[in-house]
Order: sequence, then C-alpha cells, then structure tokens
Amino acid sequence: MSKAGVTLSLADIQAKLGGQLVGDGSVQIEAIAPLAEATAGQISFLSQRKYAPLLATTQATALILPLEAAGHFPRPHVLTENPYLYFARVSQLLNPVTIPDPRIHPTAVISPTAKIGRNAVIHAGVVIGDEVTIGDDALIYPNVTIYHDCHIGDRVVIHAGVVIGADGFGNAKDGDVWIKIPQIGRVIMGDDVEVGANTCIDRGALDDTVIGNGVKIDDQIMIGHNCRIGNNTAIAACAGIAGSTIIGERCLVGGAAMFSGHIEITDDVQISGGSAIIKNIKKPGQYTGVFPSVPHADWLHIAANLRQLDGLSKKIQLLEAQIQALAQQKNGE
Amino acid sequence: MSKAGVTLSLADIQAKLGGQLVGDGSVQIEAIAPLAEATAGQISFLSQRKYAPLLATTQATALILPLEAAGHFPRPHVLTENPYLYFARVSQLLNPVTIPDPRIHPTAVISPTAKIGRNAVIHAGVVIGDEVTIGDDALIYPNVTIYHDCHIGDRVVIHAGVVIGADGFGNAKDGDVWIKIPQIGRVIMGDDVEVGANTCIDRGALDDTVIGNGVKIDDQIMIGHNCRIGNNTAIAACAGIAGSTIIGERCLVGGAAMFSGHIEITDDVQISGGSAIIKNIKKPGQYTGVFPSVPHADWLHIAANLRQLDGLSKKIQLLEAQIQALAQQKNGE
Amino acid sequence: MSKAGVTLSLADIQAKLGGQLVGDGSVQIEAIAPLAEATAGQISFLSQRKYAPLLATTQATALILPLEAAGHFPRPHVLTENPYLYFARVSQLLNPVTIPDPRIHPTAVISPTAKIGRNAVIHAGVVIGDEVTIGDDALIYPNVTIYHDCHIGDRVVIHAGVVIGADGFGNAKDGDVWIKIPQIGRVIMGDDVEVGANTCIDRGALDDTVIGNGVKIDDQIMIGHNCRIGNNTAIAACAGIAGSTIIGERCLVGGAAMFSGHIEITDDVQISGGSAIIKNIKKPGQYTGVFPSVPHADWLHIAANLRQLDGLSKKIQLLEAQIQALAQQKNGE
Repeated sequence: MSKAGVTLSLADIQAKLGGQLVGDGSVQIEAIAPLAEATAGQISFLSQRKYAPLLATTQATALILPLEAAGHFPRPHVLTENPYLYFARVSQLLNPVTIPDPRIHPTAVISPTAKIGRNAVIHAGVVIGDEVTIGDDALIYPNVTIYHDCHIGDRVVIHAGVVIGADGFGNAKDGDVWIKIPQIGRVIMGDDVEVGANTCIDRGALDDTVIGNGVKIDDQIMIGHNCRIGNNTAIAACAGIAGSTIIGERCLVGGAAMFSGHIEITDDVQISGGSAIIKNIKKPGQYTGVFPSVPHADWLHIAANLRQLDGLSKKIQLLEAQIQALAQQKNGE
Repeated sequence: MSKAGVTLSLADIQAKLGGQLVGDGSVQIEAIAPLAEATAGQISFLSQRKYAPLLATTQATALILPLEAAGHFPRPHVLTENPYLYFARVSQLLNPVTIPDPRIHPTAVISPTAKIGRNAVIHAGVVIGDEVTIGDDALIYPNVTIYHDCHIGDRVVIHAGVVIGADGFGNAKDGDVWIKIPQIGRVIMGDDVEVGANTCIDRGALDDTVIGNGVKIDDQIMIGHNCRIGNNTAIAACAGIAGSTIIGERCLVGGAAMFSGHIEITDDVQISGGSAIIKNIKKPGQYTGVFPSVPHADWLHIAANLRQLDGLSKKIQLLEAQIQALAQQKNGE
Repeated sequence: MSKAGVTLSLADIQAKLGGQLVGDGSVQIEAIAPLAEATAGQISFLSQRKYAPLLATTQATALILPLEAAGHFPRPHVLTENPYLYFARVSQLLNPVTIPDPRIHPTAVISPTAKIGRNAVIHAGVVIGDEVTIGDDALIYPNVTIYHDCHIGDRVVIHAGVVIGADGFGNAKDGDVWIKIPQIGRVIMGDDVEVGANTCIDRGALDDTVIGNGVKIDDQIMIGHNCRIGNNTAIAACAGIAGSTIIGERCLVGGAAMFSGHIEITDDVQISGGSAIIKNIKKPGQYTGVFPSVPHADWLHIAANLRQLDGLSKKIQLLEAQIQALAQQKNGE
C-alpha cells in the first residue's frame, strides 16, 4: 500500500503518450501538481480557460496545454486536444501503484477453489469464497469480502471494506414472519471496473447481478440483487440502487441518488445528486428531484404550504371560475 | 462460503413442506428457476397471475401453483395457497447454506469471555469482543465486528462488514469542544434477525439498542443508539435511523428512508423509499415524502417556485380577498 | 474490547471534576444511570427542567444538579453550571476504555514504515499502510483500513470498519471510457477526532483531505477527496460530502445530509438532517431542505401539483392581471 515515485523526461512522456512536444524535452519530471502549486521538477496542466492567467506565474518545469495555447508559454510543454485526459495518463506514469511482495498477503483467506488471475494483488484481511474468479491484474485492497461463485474481471480495483456477493434482500411472508429466500445468483463484474470503499454489491436472487465493463462505482454505494449496470456508467458515492433495477450505458449517477427497484434507466442518462428515481427513464438527459435547502425559518413556511399544495391548487381553480363569472356578469350588464 | 446443491424428489418436497401433490412425485428436482428459464430437473413457481401464460411454454420438470390453477398444468406440480412462500421453502431445501469445517474460522478473533452458541458459524476475519453472546445456529460472515457485551440471538445471520455495538454518537459541549459521553449500553438482538452487508447498529448510550425477533435489515443501514425495532419489521438498504427512535412491529421501511431521532413509529407502518420521517407516526398506513424527479430544466422552474411557495400562497389569499370585494361591490350596485 | 467498571466516592469525583459538593462525599458511586432507572450505588443527573419531578422519586445515591437546584434535593449531590457536561465527564471516570494487552493486536497488519504513537491501541484485523502516522493515545477498533501516507492525530478514535485514505473518485473521459486519475493526496486528521463505524474518508486527488481538530464524525459517512472539515464540527450518520467541499468550524451536520462538491459552508452553520446542500452557505444559521412525509395518498396529490407548480404560478399571475383589469373597469364605470 505505498506509492513509489518515478522520474521521466518530458520527451519520455511524449514518446509514451503522444501530443506535440514544444521546447526542451530533456527536462526531468518527478511529480504532477496544480498550476498554482507546482514547483521545479513538476509538470502541471491547463484544463479550463479560467486558469489561463496562472500560466504567467506558475513555477512548473513543464506544462500540458490545449492546442489553442500554442505559442503562449515559453517553457517546455506538450500540446494536446484534451489536457485533462493527458494529465490523468501522465499521473499514471508518475504514480504507479505499488505492488506488494508477495502479491497475495499471507493474512488473506482465499478458498482453494477460487481462481486468482495473473499479477492480481490481494491485500491483507481479504476473504475470497469458493469458486470465485478474480481477473488478471486485479487489485483488491484490505478487508474486502467476496462471497462464493462471484466473478471479478481483469484490471478491476476494489477498495477496502467492500462486500461483493452478500445475499440480496429477499423474504417471503408467512403470516407476520419473514421466510428467507436463498440468494442463488452471483455477481458478475466486467473488466476495468473500480469499486470504492465500503460499497456493497449483492448477489442475485435467481439470476445474476451484472456490472458492465468500465463501470466506476464510488464509496458507500449499495447495488441490490439482480441489478444490471451498463458499460462505462459512473456512480458517485452514497447512491443506492434497489433490486432488479437496470441502468444503461454511459450514465452518470450523482451522489446519494436513490433508485426504486424494478425500474429501467436508458443509456446516457444523468441523475443529479440526491435525486430519487422511482419510475423508468426512457429518454437520455439530466433528471433532478431535490428539495432546495433554505434557511430553516423559510423552510417551515414552504413545508407548511407544500402540505397544503393540493388545497392551493383547488383554490386557484375556484378563483378562476369566480373571475370568469364576474367577467361574464360584466359583459352581460 | 460455498453452496452445495441437493437433489430431492417432488414427493420428498411435498412430504417436508405440505401442499397437494398432483402427478408423478418421483421426478427429481435439483434446482429452482424462474418460469421462463427453468429447464429439465428444475422446479419453478407461479406467484403472480400475469405470468400464467408462461405455464404453456415453461420447460420446468415441476411447478408450484396456486390452488386456483388446479387442472391447468399437465406435468407434476404442488398446489398451495401461497406459491411464493412455498418457493422460498423449496429453495431453502435445495440450497442449504454450506457449513465450513471447522465452523469457527481460525482467523476469527473471539474474546475468551464470549459465548458462542451450538452450531454457530463464524467466518474469517470476524472479531467478537468480551462477554458477547452469540445464539445457536447463528451465521456470521467474514470481517464482521461485534463489540463487547452485545447479545446476538439464535439463527441470526450477519453479513460481511457489519459492525454491531460501536459507540453511539454522544457528545456534550464544553465551550466549542465536544466531550465524549461513554456509550455503556449494549445491542440486544433477538432471534431470526438478518443483517445485511456493511450495516451498523450502535450500542446504547445508557440503555440498550434493541432489535426484535425476526427483524430483517438490509445492507448499508445505520441504526443509532437506543433505537428499538419491533418484531418482524423489515428495513431496506441505505436507511438511517437516528438515536432513540422507536419503530413498531411489522413495519416496512423503504430503502434510503431516514428517521429523525427521538420519534416513535407505531406498528404496521410502511415508509416509502427515500422518505424523511421527522415526526411521530401514530396511525398505521403508508407514508411518503419524496421530491419527484423530473427533467432538470423543469426542476429548475419547480425549485424556483417552491422557494416562493409562501409568497404564492399569500398572493392567493390576496386574490381571494380582491375577488370577494369585487363581488360585493357588484352585489351592492 | 471490554469495559472495566470503576468505583469512586462522590468526593473523589468532585476533587477531579470540580463543582460544589453538597452532603456526604463518602458515598460510593459505581455507575451512572438515568434518573428514572438509577438504583443504590449509582449517580444520575438533571440536564433538563422537564425531568425535575423525578428528583422526588429517583433511587440514585447521588446526583449532578444545576446551580438553580440548590436546596432542592436532600441526598448527596454536586452542583454545577452544566450537568450534562459534568455527567459526560463522570461517565468517563466510571467507564474507562479497556486497554487490551498487548495494545497492538497480533492480527493487525502494520507497515514497517508506519509510526504508531505512544499508548495507541490497535485492535484485531486493522491494516495500516506505508508511512502512516498514528498519534499518541489513538484508539483504532477492529477491521479498520488506513491507506498509505495518511496522518491520524493524537487521541483519535476510529471505529470498526472505517476506511481512511482510499482513492477519491477521479476519472477523465477518453471517448466513452473512464481513465483513472491517480489519487496522490493524503488524509490529514487532527487531534481528538472520532470517526464512527464504516465511515469512509477518501484521500485527496492532488491536495490533501483535511479533518480538523475535535471533529466528530458518526457512522456510515462518506467524505470525498480534498474536502476540508473545520475544527469541532460534528457530522451525524449517513451524511455524504462530495469532493472538494469545505465545511467551516463548529458546524452541525444532521444525519443523511448531502453536500454537492466544490461548495463552501461557512462557520457555525447547522444543516438539518436529510437536507441536500447544493450551493455555498455564507451566513451562519440553520438550513433545511426536506420534503415533509405525509400519508401516501396525500403525497400523490402533492407530488402531482408540485410537478405543475410552474403552471400554478403562471395561473396566479394571470388571475392577478384579470382582477386588476376588472377592478379598473369598475373604477372607470
């Protein structure tokens, strides 16, 4: 769990990542930093025009700049269409994940029937159940639990405290008493998924819970049994997705958004943070449902009126009728 | 943490679970599956009338059917009043929980003063504090922590990552500084409770936190100190229940519902997912408080008007007065 | 993880904590209990006037009373300005945290480059990464994970299942695909912080995530990368704070409150439970944004009208114009 720094020349970086090198490629880069904080030996980047004035004062040894900035910076730099993406890739080069030795910590408890992929890293305290498969180059942080029969793809990163494949919430009523429905599906997770700390993804009831390729899942999220999350969807922290809900590809789910069960969200939908989604969404676009926060004294009035909203609506109908009657009387005079 | 399959004849199943056997009871059943997916050797069930057309095409070897379906299916089946409940019980027969050997994993850390019931299973990485009692046939999944002095009933299932009996959130102010109030109550959990992954139930401050018999608690839930949850209440994922709140028996709490502290909810209340409950509820029934999600552009208008709702309400009052005045003038003409 | 009881005389208590001793200081106190439940050998306290009638019937051996109660209780007591605070301190004396032997559990996995402070307690299953520093007298409960390079102050308490320093949620888009941005900041936590069970605090992206001194954080909370929480702020359970948000000093955040990223909340702000904060707050005070829960049938009407709120607002404008026109006609007659 430590990070080892790496030093590269700007020419090395350009050779690996492309872009147009301007100036002295031999400058040595050992870290990445924001424009305002970068010092000698560091590279920074300009991803939004509003930060352009910082180009005049930054102490960075080299920069990553958008094409339209050509000619505007005297020291070494790389020109690229998407400086933010280039920054991400440079940072990956400069900050490789430390690989522990041995790769599988001796305190990890791994079933003899589990299959662990090549170069996978399993940290301390991880528990992996029977018949689990873990893909190549997967990275499992400490104290993660993966229940039996689940499948984790290649290059998946799972952060500490995550639970994959616990039983979904399935019970049948016998009078007042709940009778457990065994959860016999699995969790099937594609490649290049990342799962944030203390998130839970429950196994399916009869079918599987399916997480697509490239899905990015933040911390403290709950994904219920039989959910299906489409490729490259990103879900921010504290979101909750109830059972059997299907979310499409390339969706963006804001933090603390909540989904009812058994609904379906199409591709390319953005859900604002804190919104409750209780119906299908069939058209791409952004959806929001958040009570705006106001000073508490104002809220008391708003909430009281909100409770009366049906009455207010009916009063307006009545007023419309009365005014129409008055106007007609006038016309009839 | 693996599942061992079991094969039973339909007659065996009927002998154990009751219901009315129709057709050849010697057919062998090795798994349960939905109507549309079931294949030879599998049993399926009809729990909702809308799925009845699938009876004509299902490949299931046997079915669980409601009494009113008598005579409508040619292959072996069991008739029962509640097919969904019967399905749950059949699935339990076919999918027994795998009991590890030894039952208590050597990496579990159990205080010498804790008492573990007969046939209880304690998985890897579980930590159990001093004077804890765990009931018979309890099943504690990996990486659970149970703090000192808590009581866990018989047949309780606790999923991975759960924390039982951490300190409640109690602090007294000393000027600007918070002084911790020791949390000296316990968590007392009845029999047949299930607790989902990564849920927390805090110990009481002076009194105990009490979870009744048969309570079903999903993943990622927080139950604060001194709460009391009545028998057979079910709480869906991501719900939060602040300290000293009392919830009655047979309640259904939807996902991500939130309860203020020090309130009381009577028996047989259903709370819709995502609702915030900030006052006592004295009458059974369903309660809801969710801002409906809409396209973002619409929400901007709605939210702006909501902030003005008190003003709108006052305008309506004014209009009512003006119309009354106009009408009186008219009558007085 | 066990608690050892302590017995003190009332005079001992007064000698340690101050206040005005009235009556026989030699009475022995072995536990603290609420007024209604206290028995012989126990001390209780009066923190709210509404409980004063219980003074006549309590069986407590001694009491902690406000100054204005002087002369109203015949048995031994201590008079103090703030009985609730005094109660907290007495309870700390009577209920010291049990220190395990050894202080660092042999199953804890601690990097050889981590530095653990004097008298710090590290429970079973804790994993501590490279170059972490843990302050003096810190108390880390079981199954906590602290990633590399984080700093934990003196006297910090971290409850079970907490994850400190997992990667923040940072990704750049490359077409449809997300490219991870390495999270190279740290978590820097001040002194006297408490962190509740299963909470996550992510490490910074480039800068650090900073938790001030005396901050109290309840269970199941998520604090995103680069957040800064001011000294002595308290955050109740299930709150979520998105990345780069700054919260001032002495704030109170209610349970399940949610904060958008990149916003700033000034000092001395109180956020009601369940509120979504999506904009800066520049003035101290209480802020609320909660949809009031009502019987479900009522909610259906309210929600339908809420969706039409923009239309209702426009109707009111139209009615105002019509009435004005009618009134002008009348005046013009």
